[in-house]
Amino acid sequence: MKAARLHKYNEPLRIEQVPDPVITDPSDVIVKIGGAGVCHTDLHLIEGVWAETLGTELPYIIGHENAGWVYQIGSAVTNFKVGDPVIVHPVMSCGKCLNCRAGEDMHCPNLTFPGLTVDGGYAEYLKTTERALIPLPNNVNPADVAPFADAGITAYRAVRKAAPLAKPGTTVLMIGMGGLGHIGVQVMRELGNADIIALDRNKDRLNMALDLGAVHAVEANDKAISQVRSLTAGQGVDIIIDFVGTDQTHADSLEMLRKGGTYYVVGYGGTVKVPSLNLINNEISIVGSLVGNYNELYQLMELHARGKVKLHSAKYSIDEANAVLKLLHEGKINGRGVLVP
Amino acid sequence: MKAARLHKYNEPLRIEQVPDPVITDPSDVIVKIGGAGVCHTDLHLIEGVWAETLGTELPYIIGHENAGWVYQIGSAVTNFKVGDPVIVHPVMSCGKCLNCRAGEDMHCPNLTFPGLTVDGGYAEYLKTTERALIPLPNNVNPADVAPFADAGITAYRAVRKAAPLAKPGTTVLMIGMGGLGHIGVQVMRELGNADIIALDRNKDRLNMALDLGAVHAVEANDKAISQVRSLTAGQGVDIIIDFVGTDQTHADSLEMLRKGGTYYVVGYGGTVKVPSLNLINNEISIVGSLVGNYNELYQLMELHARGKVKLHSAKYSIDEANAVLKLLHEGKINGRGVLVP
Amino acid sequence: MKAARLHKYNEPLRIEQVPDPVITDPSDVIVKIGGAGVCHTDLHLIEGVWAETLGTELPYIIGHENAGWVYQIGSAVTNFKVGDPVIVHPVMSCGKCLNCRAGEDMHCPNLTFPGLTVDGGYAEYLKTTERALIPLPNNVNPADVAPFADAGITAYRAVRKAAPLAKPGTTVLMIGMGGLGHIGVQVMRELGNADIIALDRNKDRLNMALDLGAVHAVEANDKAISQVRSLTAGQGVDIIIDFVGTDQTHADSLEMLRKGGTYYVVGYGGTVKVPSLNLINNEISIVGSLVGNYNELYQLMELHARGKVKLHSAKYSIDEANAVLKLLHEGKINGRGVLVP
Amino acid sequence: MKAARLHKYNEPLRIEQVPDPVITDPSDVIVKIGGAGVCHTDLHLIEGVWAETLGTELPYIIGHENAGWVYQIGSAVTNFKVGDPVIVHPVMSCGKCLNCRAGEDMHCPNLTFPGLTVDGGYAEYLKTTERALIPLPNNVNPADVAPFADAGITAYRAVRKAAPLAKPGTTVLMIGMGGLGHIGVQVMRELGNADIIALDRNKDRLNMALDLGAVHAVEANDKAISQVRSLTAGQGVDIIIDFVGTDQTHADSLEMLRKGGTYYVVGYGGTVKVPSLNLINNEISIVGSLVGNYNELYQLMELHARGKVKLHSAKYSIDEANAVLKLLHEGKINGRGVLVP
Ligand SMILES: [Zn+2]
Ligand SMILES: [Zn+2]
Ligand SMILES: [Zn+2]
Ligand SMILES: [Zn+2]
Ligand SMILES: [Zn+2]
Ligand SMILES: [Zn+2]
Ligand SMILES: [Zn+2]
Ligand SMILES: [Zn+2]
Ligand SMILES: [Zn+2]
Ligand SMILES: [Zn+2]
Repeated sequence: MKAARLHKYNEPLRIEQVPDPVITDPSDVIVKIGGAGVCHTDLHLIEGVWAETLGTELPYIIGHENAGWVYQIGSAVTNFKVGDPVIVHPVMSCGKCLNCRAGEDMHCPNLTFPGLTVDGGYAEYLKTTERALIPLPNNVNPADVAPFADAGITAYRAVRKAAPLAKPGTTVLMIGMGGLGHIGVQVMRELGNADIIALDRNKDRLNMALDLGAVHAVEANDKAISQVRSLTAGQGVDIIIDFVGTDQTHADSLEMLRKGGTYYVVGYGGTVKVPSLNLINNEISIVGSLVGNYNELYQLMELHARGKVKLHSAKYSIDEANAVLKLLHEGKINGRGVLVP
Repeated sequence: MKAARLHKYNEPLRIEQVPDPVITDPSDVIVKIGGAGVCHTDLHLIEGVWAETLGTELPYIIGHENAGWVYQIGSAVTNFKVGDPVIVHPVMSCGKCLNCRAGEDMHCPNLTFPGLTVDGGYAEYLKTTERALIPLPNNVNPADVAPFADAGITAYRAVRKAAPLAKPGTTVLMIGMGGLGHIGVQVMRELGNADIIALDRNKDRLNMALDLGAVHAVEANDKAISQVRSLTAGQGVDIIIDFVGTDQTHADSLEMLRKGGTYYVVGYGGTVKVPSLNLINNEISIVGSLVGNYNELYQLMELHARGKVKLHSAKYSIDEANAVLKLLHEGKINGRGVLVP
Repeated sequence: MKAARLHKYNEPLRIEQVPDPVITDPSDVIVKIGGAGVCHTDLHLIEGVWAETLGTELPYIIGHENAGWVYQIGSAVTNFKVGDPVIVHPVMSCGKCLNCRAGEDMHCPNLTFPGLTVDGGYAEYLKTTERALIPLPNNVNPADVAPFADAGITAYRAVRKAAPLAKPGTTVLMIGMGGLGHIGVQVMRELGNADIIALDRNKDRLNMALDLGAVHAVEANDKAISQVRSLTAGQGVDIIIDFVGTDQTHADSLEMLRKGGTYYVVGYGGTVKVPSLNLINNEISIVGSLVGNYNELYQLMELHARGKVKLHSAKYSIDEANAVLKLLHEGKINGRGVLVP
Repeated sequence: MKAARLHKYNEPLRIEQVPDPVITDPSDVIVKIGGAGVCHTDLHLIEGVWAETLGTELPYIIGHENAGWVYQIGSAVTNFKVGDPVIVHPVMSCGKCLNCRAGEDMHCPNLTFPGLTVDGGYAEYLKTTERALIPLPNNVNPADVAPFADAGITAYRAVRKAAPLAKPGTTVLMIGMGGLGHIGVQVMRELGNADIIALDRNKDRLNMALDLGAVHAVEANDKAISQVRSLTAGQGVDIIIDFVGTDQTHADSLEMLRKGGTYYVVGYGGTVKVPSLNLINNEISIVGSLVGNYNELYQLMELHARGKVKLHSAKYSIDEANAVLKLLHEGKINGRGVLVP
């Protein structure tokens, strides 16, 4: 099959022919890829940021935001048949450990992460496991929803954690209106009742955010902090969800959070520095959020099926993988780019 | 009356005669002090750490861990009569704002904090409000429980927040076995089901912690991190409650926390520094905890009434206030010192 | 002032002149009534259903869904001034007991309930307490929102309890689309993410429910149970909120509830009969819900201020009180009737 | 192998030779039985109470409270090896449905229940699945813990649901101090902080309850209701956990429940009848509880491993199965009877 493989860090992916994946475990499923989302994590993988942490052997196929059709099934697969349209939860969790039994797939000590630790979806076919599959309605084109598999549930889980605090009369600041953020705003509009303030450098994205449910839009410049504070009568916001995660967004967030507030961190790269006197005297919380579990992806797809969450995306051929990654790096992708084999 | 007043930062308190407090509001109550706990916050007040934040005019009487007997009541007081033994919640909250209505006294925007923002309890009498009082059983000597009013609920609230995570089979690390910590261990034993690891520099305190419910005791030296990790099969602990709050306890805590874990910060002074990659990849939370509310103090006193939480304390005359503060600063008080007028 | 008083059970109210209420406690407030909602509970009061439970001495003024303007304030009132538009939480809670301190006004053992236990709002003036008042925006006419004070928060609290279960992909059945139900549907649309099935005898109300957020409308006849089951693939609904509460809605609800489901009871009059084998084998819960607390009314008014919850109401003169009550009893009021002095 | 099979309802089990179970699915495990608890549900199965609901074909082997050693494993089993001591979660859940993914094994639509729907553990060997197994420490004799597999987790889950309400200062009434109840009292002592009132007809059981953590013991006679009310200053208890479930315990419970209280139903047989006026005016909840999930059994075994929950049991030969069932029916078993092959 054709695939885009990472051979060397900081070099372009090679578009090349590789053997098709084969079923080796009775619960394996081969998915014919309909679309694979192009993600900031793919940039980080190519840059080698994850090299030491993951230790994945090169070359391998990246791509962890996958949807398509069931192509082959192992002997123990009972809930899917060949041809079924599916979206693929990004990890293969074991289903037997205490974390899996509590629903927390991302905390499975035995997990396999196609596109990060084994071959992923920048290809014609992907090997995953039955437990990772969620059926799609027949009228949904897998390429149109593929980014929900990671960008979508990552936004969903962070918002789902914050939603019980987002009572009527509260305010939430959402930082970064890109791939994750534009989904996050919609999910917050659906799951929560806080007034949404969107923050981004880009006016087009802010306008999109206003269309999608934000009540206020604030440009990310040196007046942003005072603007956010004045939108909240000087008190700061009850909730922040940070899809960016730089030193600056971390520092600014702590300036904009209200007494008793909670800061959800989704984007990463910077360092959060907070005096414990601030943590205590303002009784704030800082909460990391990691991708999302199977049931969260299921719930997100239910919202999508009801037209409650829309994805802004553009399709590209797999041969354009390197070009799309470049556009993403330059901040020129609005919403999400999707590779179609 | 006799009182110990702060006249100048970084100078000893003056033990002197001052006018008795008088009732000015129909809901005011004058409490005859039975005992006033001596707290690290008192040291910080004298050092001027809070000077700018609070802006309290000098001189004033410090002391915020108070218990005694009702001495005078305002015309609107209905639930207490003169002579009733009481413990005094440390703040006078308004009872009318949204935070008070949600039970969160410490977040009341209208609060008065005797001993910090107005005259406190290093004295013969204290002015507070009916809403701050919790009745004591007749067989309890107020001086024996006074430190519960702040040290106690501060430990209680942090543990109460952590308790839902402290399921059987989990592990909690509790840092600092002093005034707060020795109460915290007991409250965790009662409210939670995690195995408790106590951490302190002082062997006597560690032995006390083992008596009070800790399962393991670890000396705070350069082997502590590896010891804690080896007690948890290399995984780290599910929960940390840090009653110390220095740069070192903050940094070490992040090394000892398990994937998915939560770090509760109670002590303060240092700065927490955490890369957002760690926050996210390990999906950890960092949670500040501030004193405690009225109902939390009530619950703590119910535990105490059943013999489930004991306070290690020693009584001193109010004339010894400066001497006791010095002992506390030198780490020579085990449990809590209490001033008796 | 003019008022409508209950002199004898099962007789019309007498519209008559009575003395104005006067301030007796420093926290008292006299509200000039802008509107008073007419409620099924008023019918029950007149019928004597509550006579024994409440033991209120006749004659007295009924009316517990009140809004208006602050007219006089006691000496301890700090947050309101004469002329402020307000909606009145239905009970005067003490603010000092453990239940009040936990935010649960309705569980205050010291509560006074104007319109039930003392004079209410079918009058020109009402005596209540500062703690019962929520400020209204200046552009809101109190008569337009008065029914939120009871019908509104009663619906709000039940939905607020159910909302965490109303995840995307679940289904909620809401029984009775009258005064409470038509608010409840809107609140569920805002707070939850379940598909809403509305059930009522009346087609106009069902159409209104579809306009307000219901996805399916089912007429309350002998096919209703099978229709609801077929809308849920034979499984039954995850959540039921019953605003009617007759023997029939109770029995039917237990037939329509899914394994693991929860049945919220808001309307009353019938008896719930459930074999414990059903409770256990289907692991269902049955949850009563009583009015709502101050913060819930605040949150509802925040939703209203954002145009997220609308009230269908019609205004009548206080002289028409008995006529409006008759219309209500005959099921001829859509939404809510409001008396304006 | 030797097994006790149900051939006809309301007749004694036949102790006979049957073929050993064989592995048919790659995730199957054959467990050599160390002990099988004898349960009220076994009586109900023999009486045919479940015949229609389950439709299990006769004859089959009953017994659903099993522990032993791994004897044979299927090809996909990875976490256990032959000889490992294990306790067996009572159901084989699919691990793939939304309920399994949320941790709720008992709500799996694809579950198999050995001892109820297929052959169980009154035998030398049992077929189950890897996902049902929890490893035991080597120093634990499986026969000593077998009843935890059902009686234990059923008590554990009900208490675990109630524990967040069991704050210091509250009171819980636990009805029935038999097999489930004597475990429930200990679990409540560990997980909750309410004062425990034990209720039973039998004085020996009440004394055992007092030993295990109850604070008060009340004999189940016509003075019980007034005794419980007087133990709670006439207010009733905050929580009831009913391990009996007759018409009488249901009716009495509603008389003893405090305003705002919750009634957990675990035992079954009677009918709960509650006027909706009571549900609402007292804002009470009635909550069914069904067995327990895998992680709950894991947590219970962690408590047991720390000596925090003890099981009162007596061992019998499998040949005595019918005699033990008779003793149970006559109320002559204290704690739990366990059959050892
Ligand atoms: Zn991604
Ligand atoms: Zn796993
Ligand atoms: Zn203190
Ligand atoms: Zn110092
Ligand atoms: Zn306040
Ligand atoms: Zn009403
Ligand atoms: Zn009627
Ligand atoms: Zn009260
Ligand atoms: Zn059983
Ligand atoms: Zn399942």
